[in-house]
Amino acid sequence: MSTRFEVLARDGAARRGRLTTAHGVVDTPVFMPLATTGTVKAMTPEGVAATGARIVLGNTYHLMLRPGAERVERLGGLHRMMGWDRPILTDSGGFQVMSLASLRKISEDGVEFRSHLDGSRHLLTPERSVEIQRLLGADITMAFDECAPFPAERPAIEASIERTLRWAERSRAAFRPRPGHGIFGIVQGGVHPDLRQRSVARLVEIGFDGYAIGGLAIGEGQDTTFAMVEATAPALPEDRPRYLMGVGKPADLVGAVRRGVDMFDCVLPTRSGRTAQAFTREGTLNLRNARHADDPAPLDPECRCPACAGFSRAYLHHLTKSGEILASMLLTAHNLTYYADLMLALRFYNLRKQYGSNPSISAELDRIFTNIVSGKLSLANLQLTGIESTNAVIYNEKKLKSANIVQNPTEQRSFDVY
Amino acid sequence: MSTRFEVLARDGAARRGRLTTAHGVVDTPVFMPLATTGTVKAMTPEGVAATGARIVLGNTYHLMLRPGAERVERLGGLHRMMGWDRPILTDSGGFQVMSLASLRKISEDGVEFRSHLDGSRHLLTPERSVEIQRLLGADITMAFDECAPFPAERPAIEASIERTLRWAERSRAAFRPRPGHGIFGIVQGGVHPDLRQRSVARLVEIGFDGYAIGGLAIGEGQDTTFAMVEATAPALPEDRPRYLMGVGKPADLVGAVRRGVDMFDCVLPTRSGRTAQAFTREGTLNLRNARHADDPAPLDPECRCPACAGFSRAYLHHLTKSGEILASMLLTAHNLTYYADLMLALRFYNLRKQYGSNPSISAELDRIFTNIVSGKLSLANLQLTGIESTNAVIYNEKKLKSANIVQNPTEQRSFDVY
Repeated sequence: MSTRFEVLARDGAARRGRLTTAHGVVDTPVFMPLATTGTVKAMTPEGVAATGARIVLGNTYHLMLRPGAERVERLGGLHRMMGWDRPILTDSGGFQVMSLASLRKISEDGVEFRSHLDGSRHLLTPERSVEIQRLLGADITMAFDECAPFPAERPAIEASIERTLRWAERSRAAFRPRPGHGIFGIVQGGVHPDLRQRSVARLVEIGFDGYAIGGLAIGEGQDTTFAMVEATAPALPEDRPRYLMGVGKPADLVGAVRRGVDMFDCVLPTRSGRTAQAFTREGTLNLRNARHADDPAPLDPECRCPACAGFSRAYLHHLTKSGEILASMLLTAHNLTYYADLMLALRFYNLRKQYGSNPSISAELDRIFTNIVSGKLSLANLQLTGIESTNAVIYNEKKLKSANIVQNPTEQRSFDVY
Repeated sequence: MSTRFEVLARDGAARRGRLTTAHGVVDTPVFMPLATTGTVKAMTPEGVAATGARIVLGNTYHLMLRPGAERVERLGGLHRMMGWDRPILTDSGGFQVMSLASLRKISEDGVEFRSHLDGSRHLLTPERSVEIQRLLGADITMAFDECAPFPAERPAIEASIERTLRWAERSRAAFRPRPGHGIFGIVQGGVHPDLRQRSVARLVEIGFDGYAIGGLAIGEGQDTTFAMVEATAPALPEDRPRYLMGVGKPADLVGAVRRGVDMFDCVLPTRSGRTAQAFTREGTLNLRNARHADDPAPLDPECRCPACAGFSRAYLHHLTKSGEILASMLLTAHNLTYYADLMLALRFYNLRKQYGSNPSISAELDRIFTNIVSGKLSLANLQLTGIESTNAVIYNEKKLKSANIVQNPTEQRSFDVY
């Protein structure tokens, strides 16, 4: 049996689900931090898990070049090499080789390219991409696809999706079924709803364990991204996870979850952590700004991360100004915690529908969620493991109620404010 | 009462001691990691404590320029700002301003210099240096001194030590006694034993809570460093800690402990951690070397650090080649653990003399120590807190013996091999 996915609850198009893989369970909606070269930058694996992340994303292109897929296999696979025993999804390398521009040549067979590291010549085909992902030991393999640039002429996109669909078929055929391991197809089609739907129909015909929506968040703007999700998600099978690749900002995630997406990855929280940007319930902060120099307050008083638990904005400002590695470590931990807590809040929100028959519970869950989103209720007060379980939610809700930490239910902020 | 120091045991000139400060106890001999700008580079405070380090060293010069001493005080002091509640020693800034060369001007009053950050003009005097260290909240303040370059003409060194002694007097006078806080004087005198002794005599006359041996490890070579320690340490008061500044390699530490030194600081373990160098029981390794690319073994199988517990040399090689921050994090943790364990072994060794009246215990302690040094006995098997206490050492020794983890007592390596 491959990966397994259950939808536990629905709220409009939004879903609360559970993905089971060879390395454990992933509750959805979920954000997947990037571990491009086999490390979530500036984090230990324990630190990553402490943020609440439960699945990370490895990169076929980077790992095939260094340290090499066969070497990773000899070292026991990517999980063992990087000390991460939870699920890993690997991308197919398609997106990276496309972005090499002048260094690559596309043919029906695959993509020939030169390494950005040493100029050495490589060929990546659907078969080789899937083989590399097997050597890495990915729980979830991505089909090898071509991501058309934006903007692009419609005929070019049509040709590109046709090739991507033939590559999807070859990827699926090359994938060796193993228990708890699955392969996802990637929907392309630029900003053309009909091409997106053609892509979906053919991918579903081939049959995948999950479906990614690719080729977005590359400059088309949030409205168009959402429009493409709306044109795609309803056509995808209800019982398979949906993964919106490369997205995004917090508001993008909230909007995409409402439109039926279950999985996300993005460089934003980790890269921002290394460039002094912090996501908080107040909005994004630039820690290099001199206004933080004397501020004894934590980044976000509601946050449970190590940066907020132990340090002032003034100190984080000092570390960023001094170019200290600890700034990257703490801000990355903070941003990943913010993203994990946002997804936790979204999962929690979707659960309330399960208790719709009991108006008082449903209303109370609504209030709890609103307070999480607005920052009035610290997620630190919720038992992470408890609310991951549908059975435990009533217990937690009661506990929160009796502890009277759900306050000011009238001062609600809307769902999209986040 | 200022800082307190007790010598618990002696072995030749070597001492096993205990230094009590406002922020707790430091067992000596001890190595102090650098927290130059208010962070041990690439480490969280919890990570630093986990290596076994119990005191860190802040830098007056760097912190006065950024974030500024008065700002650190407003933020609750250096301990609170950096999240480190154990002892801190701060250097006086003397060494750093001297090394600015063309950017500084020395007078009887002090040193006028331009900041390496923005060119702004500053004056550092003995009084201001001591005031800054008070604002930072240092448990141990260092007197403001001039470190003569090496090589230097004898008349220049004589003039320099005379000025340093006048500055020592002013530093002592400027120091405000507070419970658990002390001030150390700094012995200078280049490579001239008689000048060193003149310096010692005058400093002891002034009276300090501890004495540092400065102006060494700046190019004179290990033999000369040791010769200067031998010319200095015996003249220092028995009941005060002795701190050899800026030293050094593991073999330097072992040799200096044998010659009566109690405290050390050096950039080596932290800087090496950021340049792919690891200290191990096999010697120093360069992780960038291609011979590690396929090695599934840990850096040092006897080491208890996070790098050795979770990762292969091949992965560390990959991280260093990829320029990943995690390489700096893991190798710094490893190197500081190595240094902490070396000091632990040296403290343990010196204790054996206390049990000299019982030949079987003494011999057993000898064997345990030899096995620690040779790497046959993992320090992870010793209870760090247990053997820090003189009372607990017999218990631990018996436990180790009964567990039969002290092996091959005949294959001994000498003390200096380390």
